[in-house]
Parts: sequence; structure tokens; C-alpha cells
Amino acid sequence: MTVADVKTDDLYPTRVGTEPALIKREDPVAWPGVDSGPIDADTLRSYDDKGFLTVEGLLTPAEVQKFWQELTRLSSDPEVKADERTVVEKSSNEVRSIFEVHKISEEIGRLATDPRVLDRARQILGSDVYVHQSRVNYMPGFKGRGFYWHSDFETWHAEDGMPRMRAVSISIALTDNYPFNGGLMLMPGAHRTFVSCVGATPDDHYKESLKEQEIGVPDQDSISKLAAEHGIEQFTGPAGSALMFDSNSMHGSGSNITPFPRSNIFIVFNSVDNTPVEPFAAPQPRPPFVANRSDFTPLSR
Amino acid sequence: MTVADVKTDDLYPTRVGTEPALIKREDPVAWPGVDSGPIDADTLRSYDDKGFLTVEGLLTPAEVQKFWQELTRLSSDPEVKADERTVVEKSSNEVRSIFEVHKISEEIGRLATDPRVLDRARQILGSDVYVHQSRVNYMPGFKGRGFYWHSDFETWHAEDGMPRMRAVSISIALTDNYPFNGGLMLMPGAHRTFVSCVGATPDDHYKESLKEQEIGVPDQDSISKLAAEHGIEQFTGPAGSALMFDSNSMHGSGSNITPFPRSNIFIVFNSVDNTPVEPFAAPQPRPPFVANRSDFTPLSR
Repeated sequence: MTVADVKTDDLYPTRVGTEPALIKREDPVAWPGVDSGPIDADTLRSYDDKGFLTVEGLLTPAEVQKFWQELTRLSSDPEVKADERTVVEKSSNEVRSIFEVHKISEEIGRLATDPRVLDRARQILGSDVYVHQSRVNYMPGFKGRGFYWHSDFETWHAEDGMPRMRAVSISIALTDNYPFNGGLMLMPGAHRTFVSCVGATPDDHYKESLKEQEIGVPDQDSISKLAAEHGIEQFTGPAGSALMFDSNSMHGSGSNITPFPRSNIFIVFNSVDNTPVEPFAAPQPRPPFVANRSDFTPLSR
Repeated sequence: MTVADVKTDDLYPTRVGTEPALIKREDPVAWPGVDSGPIDADTLRSYDDKGFLTVEGLLTPAEVQKFWQELTRLSSDPEVKADERTVVEKSSNEVRSIFEVHKISEEIGRLATDPRVLDRARQILGSDVYVHQSRVNYMPGFKGRGFYWHSDFETWHAEDGMPRMRAVSISIALTDNYPFNGGLMLMPGAHRTFVSCVGATPDDHYKESLKEQEIGVPDQDSISKLAAEHGIEQFTGPAGSALMFDSNSMHGSGSNITPFPRSNIFIVFNSVDNTPVEPFAAPQPRPPFVANRSDFTPLSR
């Protein structure tokens, strides 16, 4: 069975066929609708072409310090540590991620509505927006494991029921990103191709997939084709830099054996015109702290 | 027991104490003795400071092609594949490394006496030289595992009985080295510090250590100190580029999830005035194809 055989009006079928497929994107990247904002025309055009943009110094050094302290406070709060939204590494008992952190931390909640962040998201998505997912990540030095190539949209579509490619992620670095400490790699331009993946989603897949994904993983042949056509770029820059990337950007990261840890704040904005429906390829949706499916109130400053 | 308690005239004690230690290097880096050669004075001074140098375009594109074909020929030769000097990955049945390759392949043997290579080694070590170890490495895309921080000299001293820091390695890239496909990272200047490691060498340690080293691994605290003092640089460059690095360079590599493989030819030159004695910290020496201990004939063009 190939993807073409599947009768559906789904533009982006995945986890339904037995052969992978490359499918042309049908959605805009930089959506029309919001005419002004902090992103200049050249940068917006480049975002449209590459599927991502970077903002050096989005946060001041003093703000980086403030958020760093907030992350430290959160990861040492026993209540937060016991929360189901917190991912704790078993072997070390250290916090690795805290989901829905914009609701757990007032500081980080305010960041989601900060004009530097929110107005850029509105400008890219051409509409009002809300938070689909948020988290902070703590990646230790020496043993950071990295994450294999994937498109976030593939999972959000298959498991969360996000209909179209009209979401943007912002990753704000709280530590310096070098080329060699496991920073994000992206394939500029590959966001215009949807890689339809093979394999069906098992029950409660999110519990495993947040650690290491096995379903919804692009095949090596597709990755090779996209890399040959588009090449690879890395997100590097000092703490306080931000990366905004399209929901269908092909991205991944290598391991980090350096002593330099990486921490970041990660917020996914979705258009209010793109709210989730039933999952396209999963027995049940992921839990609300991983994928918001109830509160679509447009964010305002 | 600390290293200082161990009664020995060994300048670089390792795997003998229960606490790691940082020991000052007592040997020159660029040794006096050979006054002329292809390395200019500035580059040699920089090698002395950093512990490594790079040569872009050491091989021409045609030569890269020739050696690439030779590597393909070797890895598909059943006799070579069955040789004990060849490391084959069990799960894939693919060749990962071939040791003592300068004796197995005439082409690669000639490279060891090529003036572009040999004269540089002689110039750095200030004497006649011979080959302590050679190998070719085949590192696949997508699943290249990387290698944790280490000093080669630590192993050569402990397990091969190499007395002093008077050896230099050359790694010649047969594929492009990007910042993101697992290229070598080095700490410039860290070659002046010897990290004494804890733990005793078990029998036949080389069988495991060629895959993933556990003994002779520097502790995280020492790595952090050296990285904070010296920083990290990466060896990047097009196929045909070469890296020459001191035996005590602190180096390692991350994983490679990109589709871009890495292959290289690796030759270790040792001074004829630095031939191995009994291992300093191992029950028996490693086998001769990993560490030459019988043929010290000076190489000549």
C-alpha cells in the first residue's frame, strides 16, 4: 500500500502507507494577513525561502540571566519536579524538560506575549495566535544525546490533529550555541516538502517519543534527497539569540560531548484559524500539556 | 591513593591512582633537530602553541578520488574483511576500520613516505620517524557514533609503552568535514597538560577500547577545566585536507546524524628516539597491528 492509495482528503497523509513519500507543501510559509511587525521584508522573504530565521540578541544579557535563574528555580522546585508535565531523567534524577511551562511560570508566560516574540509569530502566521505547546529544555554537557531528523508538523498532524502548516516555533537560547555542542541543524528549503512516514502510531506513543522517536521518523532515503537538494545549516549564536522555524522544517541535532550545556525556552504558536481536529493518524490525541486542544484564546500583549 | 603517592620515575603516570590529576607536560611539542621542511615558521609556532595544524588541499581532488577507490576496494575484499586487523560492525557487517593499512595497501604505504606527509612529520618530531599505527576509518552517515574526549598518548603510554610525547598523527580527510558531521574537535593548548586517568587496564582491553573506551577516559572535571581554559576548535575542510596533531592533544568527536559520511586515512608517526618499552599501565602490550613494537626502520622517501 502506498500513500497514493489511501482515500482521504488529508493533504498530508502519514503513518498510513508502507512506503515513505515526498509530498509537496500546499500551504503558505509566511502567511498574508498581518502587514506590520518587527520582521523586515527581507528577513520575512528569507523565512519564506528557508523556513527559519534567527534573531541575535532577542533577549538582553540581563534577561538571559533572569530566565536562567527562573529555570534553576523551576528545576529545583519539588512540586514542579513531581508534576506530570516534567520529564526527569531516571538515571540522574535531573530535570530534562518542563512542558506547558508558560502556565507554570509567570515569567515565561509573559515571554509568550512579549511583543518581540508574539508580534513576530503573528506576522509569520498572518493571524491571531495561541500557544500549542511550550517547554523549557535542560541539556547537560558531556552526555547530551541529540535528536534525529524530523518535522514537528508530522507529529502535530498525525497525533495532535493540527490540520495545516500554519504554526511556528521559537527557540530562545539561554546558553551559547556553538557548532559543536549539539545545536539545532536545519535543512533550508526542505519545509516545502512533507515527508510521509511509515508505521502506525501505538497507544500512548508520546511517553516514548518525547525521549526518542521511532514512529514518525523520516526514512534515510528521503533525508538524503532533502540534504542533497537543500544542504544543512546550524543555529549558532550567543545566549539570548532566537530561532524561529516553520512547523514543517526538517531539523535534528547531534550529540553533545562538550562540557558546555544547552538550555532553551521553546514556544509553539499556532494560528487561531488552524486549531486541532481529531488526530490524523493516532488512536488518541496526546495529553493537553503536550498539545493544547482547548484554550484557543488569541494571545495579546 | 593519589598519583603523587605512586613511586615511579614515570613522567606521565596514569591508571595507577584513584584520583585523576593534571600533570604538566615535560616534553617539547615541535622538537628541534630537523631544520627544513614544508612547514613554515609561523605554522610550526602555531603547532607548538595549539598542538595541531591543518593543511588544506594536502591531496589533490584526483588523489582523493584514487584513495577513495582504494578504500572501496579494500572494504569489499573478502580477504581484507576477514583479516584480524579489520574492524567489522556486527549489526551491519560493514567495515569500520582497517589497521596497519600502510602494509595492507601499497597506495597507502606510499602515502606514509610521501614528502608532503613524511617531511612534515620529521620536521615536527625533529628526527627520523617510523609508523606506530595506521588505519583507514569508514564512518557512515546517519549513525556515526562519535568518540569521547581522550589523549592518544595516554593509551599509547599506558598500553603500548611509548615513553615520551614525541609522536604526531596525521588525519587525511577523504570526505568533506562540515561542522555538523562529527568532525574532530580539539582543545588548542591542552596538549601541554597530561590528564592522569583512574582505573586499571583489564586484559585484552584493546578489543573493547577500539569501539568505546572506558578505561583511560579523562574525568569530567579535568575536561571542564581544560575546555574553560583552552576552548574548543573543530577540524573542518574539504576532502583532501589534513590535520596533524600532537600525541597528547585532547580531542573527541560528536555523533553524525547527517547523510554525509566521513572517511579518512590516519597515520601515527613516532620518533625513532621514542620507541616503545614495556607498557606503563597494562598487563600486556596491544597487538602489533594496533601498535608497532618491532619495526623501527626510519622511513625514507
